[in-house]
Amino acid sequence: MHTRYLDDFSVGETFESRSASLTEAQIMDFALTWDPQPFHIDKQAALKGQFGGIIASGFHTQALAFRLFYDLGLIAKSNVIGLGVDDARWPAPVRPDDALRNIVEVVEIKPSSSKPDRGVLKLAHKVVNQNDVVVMTFTTLKILKRKPDA
Amino acid sequence: MHTRYLDDFSVGETFESRSASLTEAQIMDFALTWDPQPFHIDKQAALKGQFGGIIASGFHTQALAFRLFYDLGLIAKSNVIGLGVDDARWPAPVRPDDALRNIVEVVEIKPSSSKPDRGVLKLAHKVVNQNDVVVMTFTTLKILKRKPDA
Repeated sequence: MHTRYLDDFSVGETFESRSASLTEAQIMDFALTWDPQPFHIDKQAALKGQFGGIIASGFHTQALAFRLFYDLGLIAKSNVIGLGVDDARWPAPVRPDDALRNIVEVVEIKPSSSKPDRGVLKLAHKVVNQNDVVVMTFTTLKILKRKPDA
Repeated sequence: MHTRYLDDFSVGETFESRSASLTEAQIMDFALTWDPQPFHIDKQAALKGQFGGIIASGFHTQALAFRLFYDLGLIAKSNVIGLGVDDARWPAPVRPDDALRNIVEVVEIKPSSSKPDRGVLKLAHKVVNQNDVVVMTFTTLKILKRKPDA
């Protein structure tokens, strides 16, 4: 998919990433560094705990979701910078070998009033697993370049 | 620091983590996997770009900030699960070797009306570097256990 500039998006458009999964070892490695809670890093505690096994750190799910989105190529040349992430929620656990994909909807397009070469793109992300269970939702705000000739 | 249960927190209380830094190699490794944008993974492009050098992925900053918060020990035994993250913003870049710390303020404590053994804790996080420049802000919502004898 080619880079899109701010003007190339339309509110309501959706995009779907390819899918990818995390192994139990990958989940435990990531969490041991960044989010070392028992249900992410301790197999025995996780088996006895509320989820019945190891689940992924929400930060890991988000990182994978971002990579899957980025690989769509949509913002590869147009992204100036990520402004923020809002409303990150994890309604269902991510387990080892779940295949996740990121379904993205354009919710707002706002050209800058002070800088005519850029504007803000707001995207709603829905991360689903192989059974179409929503495991994470979040929105992103990005500063994107406008079309060079716009 | 010992684990605190929901009832042990007070609105307005603040906690400050120890500090830690990310090397350029760590920043580039993380970003190559999760956020492979030029200003995170390509030294030459980064030097010529808007930041004048490699900067950390916002997801990397957030992951480090969470680990620093978790290491305070406050929620080690009381956390049931992270519910969500709101309003993540990155007002200034994080550069290699910046020493970051996470300053956390309790903003809301809400015992559950349906489950008397738990409730929601809302924390505002401010991540600052060695010059006290704010590089990230976000709020977290966690389900925490109430005091076992409450």
